[in-house]
Amino acid sequence: MGKLTLYIGNKNYSSWSLRPWIAMTAAGIDFQEVLIPFDFPAGNPKFKPISPTGRVPVLHHGNIRVWESLSIIEYVAELFPEKGIWPKAAADRAVARSISMEMLSGFRALRNACPMNMRRPKRKLDLPEGVMDDVTRIETIWRELRAKSGGPFLFGAFTGADAMFAPVVNRFDVYDLVTDAGTLAYMAAMKSHPAWIKWQEAALAESWIVPEDEA
Amino acid sequence: MGKLTLYIGNKNYSSWSLRPWIAMTAAGIDFQEVLIPFDFPAGNPKFKPISPTGRVPVLHHGNIRVWESLSIIEYVAELFPEKGIWPKAAADRAVARSISMEMLSGFRALRNACPMNMRRPKRKLDLPEGVMDDVTRIETIWRELRAKSGGPFLFGAFTGADAMFAPVVNRFDVYDLVTDAGTLAYMAAMKSHPAWIKWQEAALAESWIVPEDEA
Ligand SMILES: N[C@@H](CCC(=O)N[C@@H](CS)C(=O)NCC(=O)O)C(=O)O
Ligand SMILES: N[C@@H](CCC(=O)N[C@@H](CS)C(=O)NCC(=O)O)C(=O)O
Repeated sequence: MGKLTLYIGNKNYSSWSLRPWIAMTAAGIDFQEVLIPFDFPAGNPKFKPISPTGRVPVLHHGNIRVWESLSIIEYVAELFPEKGIWPKAAADRAVARSISMEMLSGFRALRNACPMNMRRPKRKLDLPEGVMDDVTRIETIWRELRAKSGGPFLFGAFTGADAMFAPVVNRFDVYDLVTDAGTLAYMAAMKSHPAWIKWQEAALAESWIVPEDEA
Repeated sequence: MGKLTLYIGNKNYSSWSLRPWIAMTAAGIDFQEVLIPFDFPAGNPKFKPISPTGRVPVLHHGNIRVWESLSIIEYVAELFPEKGIWPKAAADRAVARSISMEMLSGFRALRNACPMNMRRPKRKLDLPEGVMDDVTRIETIWRELRAKSGGPFLFGAFTGADAMFAPVVNRFDVYDLVTDAGTLAYMAAMKSHPAWIKWQEAALAESWIVPEDEA
């Protein structure tokens, strides 16, 4: 079926890159990875020729270019239907997409105040308005779905929806935002997933510093 | 398969409601529509019991609740595979999702400065920074896809991607943002679609005024 190449940003900071990367890695999909660091204020001019938006992540598959993190996840879910990237039941799949799109379109207070930063030592921030509303809504999503599925992930096994929330696990952790036992159990499941560990090790080995992402 | 009920906001203003509504109507899907106006600063408290996010649109199907405009489109695309809500070719479908998600996650300068308003008389605004970058990117998307498909819509026939961009057609129009002939041809195709005309007629018959959406 031809080689898949996923272009990503810095593993320490690029939350949108982590999402399709962890979905594909957790599913055991074979792909080539090309990391282009963004050590410039507005990304890296080298993103322009590879991505229609000038942003990463972007997936190349032969002549096909797929951009937007969740669109890449949809693309590989169609390409590998046997990998369980989306839940099997239509009702679960609908909820998985709804929460993935809530993540894609929202939670801006949290995303702006608390950038993903894999190497940041745990330390609280003064939080602007709205951040704790986002945290509460995310904890509600996780709690309700794990109560229904039995965990450890949102729909039992790891799916594209967990991939969409993966960067939030880092944020909750390093900005010390949560105390609920169920929330912490979900975070522990994520942080002990082999795909997470692989990403994190690579992130910690990076040396680029992006000042605007150091909150 | 059970009744589909789509909860929407005011037709004059609710851009997110228009997206699944026009996708379902253009596809000839039978559904019940319930309009709950938002004449309060932050929506309507009546959205809370029907929608997990407290926002519209939301689709109810038996016990299933589907929220986020594009997730509703994905749900009905799966339910009615024969309706062509997504393009048939996998490569086109990938691009349709990528641009739909660009819309869902981005173009915030345009969305914030120029709220959808079906009854607004055409009049230019002083535009904040970023709006014309959004306009340019959207015109590029439309131009490239219509050049490839031959039009009149992005992938030839009307798809979920056109539904996601439908509110932009109103914005380009009433804030007088564009002059390119190809852009205007796409807008003309949209505005003469029977589903668009039906929505617009209902919008013009509404009398609610939402001051913060009157730019
Ligand atoms: N909604 C997009 C967001 C992509 C995005 O913002 N990527 C960042 C890196 S995490 C980027 O490329 N920034 C560089 C820039 O904006 O120039 C997605 O889901 O993929
Ligand atoms: N990303 C959501 C956005 C939904 C949204 O913001 N809906 C507006 C109406 S167009 C709303 O319900 N506003 C009321 C509120 O935020 O309280 C989607 O795609 O459905």
